[in-house]
Amino acid sequence: MSEIKNIVTDLCIIGAGPVGLFAVFEAGLLKMRCHLVDVLPQVGGQLSEIYPQKPIYDIPGFPEIKAQVLIDNLMEQIKPFNPGFSLGERVEQLIKNDDETFNVKTSDGTIINCKTVVIAGGLGCFEPRKPDIENLLNFEGKGVNYMVKDPEFYRGKKVILAGGGDSALDWTIYLANIAKEVTLVHRGDTFRGAPDSAEKVFNLAEAGKINLILSSHLVKIEGSELLEKVYLIDKNKQEHVLLADNLIPLFGLSPKLGPIADWDLSINKSAIEVNTEDYSTNIKGIYAIGDINTYKGKLKLILSGFHEAALMAQSAFKFVYPDAKLSFKYTTVYGVNSF
Amino acid sequence: MSEIKNIVTDLCIIGAGPVGLFAVFEAGLLKMRCHLVDVLPQVGGQLSEIYPQKPIYDIPGFPEIKAQVLIDNLMEQIKPFNPGFSLGERVEQLIKNDDETFNVKTSDGTIINCKTVVIAGGLGCFEPRKPDIENLLNFEGKGVNYMVKDPEFYRGKKVILAGGGDSALDWTIYLANIAKEVTLVHRGDTFRGAPDSAEKVFNLAEAGKINLILSSHLVKIEGSELLEKVYLIDKNKQEHVLLADNLIPLFGLSPKLGPIADWDLSINKSAIEVNTEDYSTNIKGIYAIGDINTYKGKLKLILSGFHEAALMAQSAFKFVYPDAKLSFKYTTVYGVNSF
Repeated sequence: MSEIKNIVTDLCIIGAGPVGLFAVFEAGLLKMRCHLVDVLPQVGGQLSEIYPQKPIYDIPGFPEIKAQVLIDNLMEQIKPFNPGFSLGERVEQLIKNDDETFNVKTSDGTIINCKTVVIAGGLGCFEPRKPDIENLLNFEGKGVNYMVKDPEFYRGKKVILAGGGDSALDWTIYLANIAKEVTLVHRGDTFRGAPDSAEKVFNLAEAGKINLILSSHLVKIEGSELLEKVYLIDKNKQEHVLLADNLIPLFGLSPKLGPIADWDLSINKSAIEVNTEDYSTNIKGIYAIGDINTYKGKLKLILSGFHEAALMAQSAFKFVYPDAKLSFKYTTVYGVNSF
Repeated sequence: MSEIKNIVTDLCIIGAGPVGLFAVFEAGLLKMRCHLVDVLPQVGGQLSEIYPQKPIYDIPGFPEIKAQVLIDNLMEQIKPFNPGFSLGERVEQLIKNDDETFNVKTSDGTIINCKTVVIAGGLGCFEPRKPDIENLLNFEGKGVNYMVKDPEFYRGKKVILAGGGDSALDWTIYLANIAKEVTLVHRGDTFRGAPDSAEKVFNLAEAGKINLILSSHLVKIEGSELLEKVYLIDKNKQEHVLLADNLIPLFGLSPKLGPIADWDLSINKSAIEVNTEDYSTNIKGIYAIGDINTYKGKLKLILSGFHEAALMAQSAFKFVYPDAKLSFKYTTVYGVNSF
C-alpha cells in the first residue's frame, strides 16, 4: 500500500457524527479546510451505526427525520467544502509541534498536521452501563443487547427493556408497535426521561399495549443457549420471573475517552470541560463539541452540538488566520474601475 | 367583541419567529403550555414577513430551505403541544404579581398570566440603520428600501446595494440573477460578512456579473419623484454618479426594544444580557433567547436560538413545576399488577 498518509489541514475533527459533520459547514463558511477521523468505517457516528432507521423528533425544522437521512443531508450540506476523511481509524496520539500546529496520529499511521483539533467524539466515546447480573456476559448477543440497532430485529419477539431515561422510554414507545410483547422494567417509580415520553409510556401501559413494571430491578437471567427467562425483585423483595426472547438494559452510557484521556484536558465526570464562549478546552487550540463536552447547563442534544460547532468555528478562525484582516483583504481593483 | 382576553399559561413567549416557535417544542417536551405574542399578524417573524421565499443555507440538516418552509415545518413540529397565539398585538406592559407569576398585557388589552416570560423578540425588535443622506426620507418606498421583502420586485431593475455585512453580500449574490444590473457599494475594502460569501461577490464582480465599488460611500440621491440617481464619493474624494431604480442600504439593524426597555433588564449595546447556563436574564423568571440576547461569543444565528430555547426550557421547568418530583410521580399501580 502506498496511500498518502500525511495530511495537512486547518481543523482536524475527531468524530464524524452529526456534530463533527456540521462543524465542517461552519468552518467552511470561514474558508477553513477540515479533515475528519472516525473509528467507524462510515460517517454518521452512532446515528448511522446504531439507529439509521430510527426517527428523530427534536431536530429543529424536522417534525420527524430518520437518523440516516439527517446524516445524508449533512453530507450534502458540507459537500461544497470538500472535507477529507480518515474512516475506520482510531486516533492514537496527539503531538504539539514547535510551530504551534498539532500532529494527530491514527491507528493506521496517518498523520494529520492541523492548526486546531476539534474533538467531536460524541457517544462513540462512550460504552453502555451494564446491570449487575452474574452471567450477563454469557447472553450478550444471545438475547441481551445494550442498544437497538435495528428495531425490526424485535418483530414478533417478547422484549424486556430496562431503564428510566429517554432511551428506555423512547424504545419502549417505538417497539410497542413492533414486538410481540414489550415490558419496561424500572428500578424507580418516576422517570428521568422527558415527561412527555413518560406520559406516553404510562398511557401505553394503561391501554394494555405494554407491561410497565416499576420499583423493581433485574437480578438473574436464564436460558439453555439463548435467553429465556428474566428474574426481577420488586420493592417488597418478592422475586418474579418473566419469559423473554430479548433483554435490552438501557442504563445510559459511561465515557470511554481512550487515548484522549492522556492529553491533559480538563475532565469533569469523564466529559471534557469547555468554555461556553467558544467551546475551547483548557488546551489552547483544542476544542470539544457535542456529547463529549460538559459545561453548566449542558444538554446532550444534537442541536446543542450544532450551536457549539458554530461558536467553535469563529474561535478556531483566529488560529487558522492569525492575521485575518490581511488574509481577507482582497485587491481593490474593482473599486474605481467599476465606474 | 367579546373575545376571551384573559389567558393563563406556563410560558408567555414574546415573539413568534423561528426561535419562539421552537421554544414551544422544547417546553412541550417538558409538559409546559405556551402562549405566543407577536406584533406581526402571522407567525414566522421576519422570515415570513420579509423574506419568505429566500433560501437559507445554515440550518443544520437542510442544504437549502426556503424561510417560509422552515416556519411551516416548525409549526408542524409544535402542533402536538397546541400553543396559544395572540398575533397582531404588541406587548405593552409587564407586571409581577404577588404570587410570583407575571401578567403580560398587550396593545389589544389581552392579559396573559404566566409563570415565566420568554423574550424571543428577534429582529422584529430592531430597526434598520440608515445612511446619512439629507433627503433620504423623501425616497423611502420610492426606490429606497432597507430590506428585501420580495426579490422578484427587483427583476429587470437597476439596483444598488450598500453595506459590508452578510445581508449586503447575500442579497448581492441573490439579486445578481434577478435584477437587470446589480451594484454593491461598500465603504471599506474588506467585508465583515462570511469570507465564503465575500469570495462569491468578488468572483461575480470578476466575471462582470455585478459591479463592485469599494472604498466609497453614499452621499446624495436624486429623482423627480422616484429615485433616479445615486451619488458616491470614493477614497480620493472624487464624486461619482450612478443611475439606479433602487437603492437598498443594508447597514445592519439597531435594536428598538420598545416597552421591554423599561423592564429593568440588564441591557448591553441594546441587547439583553443573559447567562449562558440557561439564557436567563437578571430578572428571575424572565429569559431572552435568539437575536435579542447577548453573551460572550454570541452569534446571531437561528440555530443558536434553537439551542438557547432548549436550555431555557430546562430552567423554566423549575418555575412551572417547583415541586417537579411530585408532579411527575405517577401512581405505581402498574407495578406489581403488571405481573
